[in-house]
Amino acid sequence: MKITRIVEKTVSIASPIRNAFIDFSKMTISLLAIETDVIRDGRPVVGYGFNSNGRYAQGGIIRERLVPRIMEAEAADLLDQGGENFDPRRIYQVMMSNEKPGGHGERSVAVGTVDMAVWDLVAKIEGKPLYQLLAERYRQGISNQTVHVYAAGGYYYPGKAISGLQEEFQRYLDLGFDACKMKVGGASTADDMARIEAAIQVVGAAQRVAVDVNGRFDLPQALDFLRHIEPLGLMWYEEAVDPLDFLANAAVAEASDTPIATGENIFSLVDARNLARHGGLHPGRDLLQIDPVLSYGLCEYLDILDMLQRHGWQANRCIPHGGHLFGVHVAAGLGLYGMEAYPEVFAPYGHFADDMVLEGGQVTLPDAPGIGYERVPTLYPELRDLPG
Amino acid sequence: MKITRIVEKTVSIASPIRNAFIDFSKMTISLLAIETDVIRDGRPVVGYGFNSNGRYAQGGIIRERLVPRIMEAEAADLLDQGGENFDPRRIYQVMMSNEKPGGHGERSVAVGTVDMAVWDLVAKIEGKPLYQLLAERYRQGISNQTVHVYAAGGYYYPGKAISGLQEEFQRYLDLGFDACKMKVGGASTADDMARIEAAIQVVGAAQRVAVDVNGRFDLPQALDFLRHIEPLGLMWYEEAVDPLDFLANAAVAEASDTPIATGENIFSLVDARNLARHGGLHPGRDLLQIDPVLSYGLCEYLDILDMLQRHGWQANRCIPHGGHLFGVHVAAGLGLYGMEAYPEVFAPYGHFADDMVLEGGQVTLPDAPGIGYERVPTLYPELRDLPG
Repeated sequence: MKITRIVEKTVSIASPIRNAFIDFSKMTISLLAIETDVIRDGRPVVGYGFNSNGRYAQGGIIRERLVPRIMEAEAADLLDQGGENFDPRRIYQVMMSNEKPGGHGERSVAVGTVDMAVWDLVAKIEGKPLYQLLAERYRQGISNQTVHVYAAGGYYYPGKAISGLQEEFQRYLDLGFDACKMKVGGASTADDMARIEAAIQVVGAAQRVAVDVNGRFDLPQALDFLRHIEPLGLMWYEEAVDPLDFLANAAVAEASDTPIATGENIFSLVDARNLARHGGLHPGRDLLQIDPVLSYGLCEYLDILDMLQRHGWQANRCIPHGGHLFGVHVAAGLGLYGMEAYPEVFAPYGHFADDMVLEGGQVTLPDAPGIGYERVPTLYPELRDLPG
Repeated sequence: MKITRIVEKTVSIASPIRNAFIDFSKMTISLLAIETDVIRDGRPVVGYGFNSNGRYAQGGIIRERLVPRIMEAEAADLLDQGGENFDPRRIYQVMMSNEKPGGHGERSVAVGTVDMAVWDLVAKIEGKPLYQLLAERYRQGISNQTVHVYAAGGYYYPGKAISGLQEEFQRYLDLGFDACKMKVGGASTADDMARIEAAIQVVGAAQRVAVDVNGRFDLPQALDFLRHIEPLGLMWYEEAVDPLDFLANAAVAEASDTPIATGENIFSLVDARNLARHGGLHPGRDLLQIDPVLSYGLCEYLDILDMLQRHGWQANRCIPHGGHLFGVHVAAGLGLYGMEAYPEVFAPYGHFADDMVLEGGQVTLPDAPGIGYERVPTLYPELRDLPG
């Protein structure tokens, strides 16, 4: 049983949107296919992966460091003990060989991208959906039957700040979402407050509207904005300050009655532990959005969940960034609070499989083996053609 | 005045050495040349840069993100206010546009590599050595006349652990170094202690021998090893634990009477501030080895020095990782404690210029404009041929 080929392709996911920190006019992602000599239904099993948006494609690191290490490894070093399937943790260790500690960015995305394809592969070889495999391996077989997903979007619409936003959120509600997240911090507080009020009007309740600063504010700005939103009782206040400024995060969390959410730019076990130790968040109230695909993949994410539990955080306080089908499996299989979804932006990489039903903000799970990208008609042709 | 071309080339610096964490058999670096339309002595001025060793080449990020941003910028956005020279901080800001906060690795190396070439360019256009330009801009013109350099090496020699190490350190002393750093943590404590004793024998004093764990130990191991070395009175105890595990760093620092050194794997202002806030180091005793080239370049490093000063750290407690001529200029111009040097490993990227004199662990400065790589006969041909 061996890997015969790994193909990476960098593609554009450019869009005219912007958050308070960056615009997405040059955004790219890496698509990845791992081809094996394992035959199912008369064809080689292929695992597919791609990285979550926002941190760019990682073709350089994948092609120059990760793929050579995997392809040069002894076959046995990539397999489980019985030799009956690939072993995600061993492959992760092979990828991380000769990598120094510290510096958790980009590399963490590159490893996470390969890792997604590995899990797709492993579940396909076992012939079951990934969420089921995860539940069996890590949760005594108990998996959630549906996953809470919220619609992330709410970007700035030049010239139609209010109507553009309201129309966007109405489309999300029509799709079956019941909670929406919007960008703030990229306009005046007065303008942002008007946008928030407009969003609440459409969604129907403040506790189903979250606001996301993308780390733009310094501490005084974050506390000032908090003073404005606090009376509303929003769903959460996300990345108000720099994600690695633990002291500022602690100050915001201490001042707030609104739940705090952060973690999408925390990319390693070590950094996540620092957030747990020094970030002053409240495990009974706040939410962690650490994204397995941006942070060295699901093996490291499992270690992060273990670490978090020792620090008082339950898995059901985690709701990853990423907005892809892989994350829906992870949330169901590991019992997370839920998963981000991108109904419109970054299409087709956030699309659900065609057998999934979304209602009241809960989505059912796909029943294809693996992640099930084969069942996403808008996405699959692009992945299928990767090996060329 | 404009940049006409930026060329990156990935080259191997493979060597058979290893530290406690990685081996260097596949190590690469990025060489970089920035060509301009500025004419000096009848030829276009070219700035040269390369990244410090240990974190691999960054051709992907440089070519896909940084070079396009610079080449697509308005010429004025890269120049100082008078339009008479390039402005390193503006170029740094252009490179960092549309980059999210957090995730400080790889990208920080890519930016630092370009930044080195920018400073070479800027000093060449002003027609003075870089250390002098830095002293004029940031230190009222006061620059150190020599720079303290120590010889980094002391790797493991399979089969001749003691004699190989002693011969290596003797060569460094013969070159004019008076202090040496060796790797530990990759063998048994008994074997490492024998190597340390052997090194002290050659160097002549324990306070001129430093030991470097490269982040390999967990906290109990780090404290146990400290117990063994503490009676010796070594120069410093480097990266005993994971560089981002601030709590473990604080515990080691608190237990130690030996100076603690760390920071070569801290790659941003935000991470450095966390080290200052949470790392428990002693500014009156310990040393910071943050490497400008690995951490977004000299502009961010200047911000780091400012931040450190507010936290009680003087510039003369800083001794950067990197072992290259650029670092010697930075140390002299900004009044740092000194600079790492690699007399043998990673050649020729650690070589001094031919007009520099090394004696008693102090090296004089080159007098060519810019960094002076043109005066390093073993290195210059490779850089000169970059633009092709």
